[in-house]
Amino acid sequence: METTTELMKSMARRKDMGMAMDMAAMQEAIDACSTCMQACTMCSDAMGGMDGMAVCASRCAMCAEVCGTTMRMLMRPAGMERTAMIAMLEACTAMCAACMEECRTHADMSATCAMCADACEACDAACSRLLASMTADAV
Amino acid sequence: METTTELMKSMARRKDMGMAMDMAAMQEAIDACSTCMQACTMCSDAMGGMDGMAVCASRCAMCAEVCGTTMRMLMRPAGMERTAMIAMLEACTAMCAACMEECRTHADMSATCAMCADACEACDAACSRLLASMTADAV
Amino acid sequence: METTTELMKSMARRKDMGMAMDMAAMQEAIDACSTCMQACTMCSDAMGGMDGMAVCASRCAMCAEVCGTTMRMLMRPAGMERTAMIAMLEACTAMCAACMEECRTHADMSATCAMCADACEACDAACSRLLASMTADAV
Amino acid sequence: METTTELMKSMARRKDMGMAMDMAAMQEAIDACSTCMQACTMCSDAMGGMDGMAVCASRCAMCAEVCGTTMRMLMRPAGMERTAMIAMLEACTAMCAACMEECRTHADMSATCAMCADACEACDAACSRLLASMTADAV
Repeated sequence: METTTELMKSMARRKDMGMAMDMAAMQEAIDACSTCMQACTMCSDAMGGMDGMAVCASRCAMCAEVCGTTMRMLMRPAGMERTAMIAMLEACTAMCAACMEECRTHADMSATCAMCADACEACDAACSRLLASMTADAV
Repeated sequence: METTTELMKSMARRKDMGMAMDMAAMQEAIDACSTCMQACTMCSDAMGGMDGMAVCASRCAMCAEVCGTTMRMLMRPAGMERTAMIAMLEACTAMCAACMEECRTHADMSATCAMCADACEACDAACSRLLASMTADAV
Repeated sequence: METTTELMKSMARRKDMGMAMDMAAMQEAIDACSTCMQACTMCSDAMGGMDGMAVCASRCAMCAEVCGTTMRMLMRPAGMERTAMIAMLEACTAMCAACMEECRTHADMSATCAMCADACEACDAACSRLLASMTADAV
Repeated sequence: METTTELMKSMARRKDMGMAMDMAAMQEAIDACSTCMQACTMCSDAMGGMDGMAVCASRCAMCAEVCGTTMRMLMRPAGMERTAMIAMLEACTAMCAACMEECRTHADMSATCAMCADACEACDAACSRLLASMTADAV
């Protein structure tokens, strides 16, 4: 996305502050969080009010919030702090894993849940790759 | 975006409930809100701490929230209510206009503000088109 | 709440910028938005997955977002802009009215919905009072 | 807060699902997150545009989001998942610690930062106590 070009430059300047991130990995994490936030919002809405889907509706609502917050933290380099950023990315992978697990159980009954499970899996993977790049950098 | 295909189908089903929306206009509004939320988040972060940029940093932070909330409301067809949806789209156009006006005043000094002003203008226009399609439908 | 004392002082300084608000009305609106956001979040969670409660779960989720965004806009005086603030308060009253209307229909079956309907009604009223004070000021 | 009484009852029912939480600790964490979200929103707004306050404004904006998301996750018992909830509480304590550290450095120059640092410290402590009660339960 063109809008994040400036962000990339800002982040590059953070390298001398010990906050270096792999820029490609960060862009992928931002995009995956954005897609997952949208998928989870729609899935939560579609499942709310369906008998037996309480866990799915609730978990998707939480996952949408966590992905949105993680994404916006990645877009705020000025005050970024290593420990908090890592902890938030870990919370995001945990939430995506929990949401994916639930949506997968009824993915064959609902195209929305199948789409949501895929978005959760992709977001979990993208945040994990970003985490790996941040940890490798610390060595 | 593929993830919103299911949403479009849900919205189409709302036509018999007096909530018909132009699906292309809705998709454009969702995408414009998403881009504007990201641009405003980054602009708010980049301007915070710059002498004389208090209004810009604050207004961008508010615009990011308004765009995000508008986007997620558009993605929740199950409980969508005509009057509230129209009011929220109007709030979004007003917030985008106020943010654009501020960012434009220093767009020549900052590529981030120029990008943000463009995103606000596009979001204002996309939400206005969706509003027009909803109002036309009511006639 | 003690934390908003500083905010009140900031807002008082806005009087010379044509953004005067009744400070008591603003504090009440902030508190009512906070309570309504919490009530709607819980109600959305409790109703999600209950057969026939799709509209309630969805509308509460939207109302929680709108109240939260309105509250945080009221807490950002630096960039506050009159037209956008009024439009957002109007969106908040419309969303609260729509959510209250839905929750009232099954308030006798669910203590959560009864609580949520009350919180929506109080938030609608508090935002309406703040709107009235802003409009009166403009005369 | 009266509105959370129903939530407490829902959470009590979760005990047989291995998600027992100390209800007093949870209520304190919810209240501390709410206060911290408000304090950080105001502090971010007050510091944005002040020369040299870029880190503070940015970190407060992130902390407000993290506290708000944590609070709403605690209010969604239906789909709560142990691993994700623990990870989010840990992200919240890390973010509060990072924000408090920054605000403390200029607390003597700004009453807003002093208030924000206190709110961050209290939220960090409350979330830590809730985490301790969840971990103790797992033994």
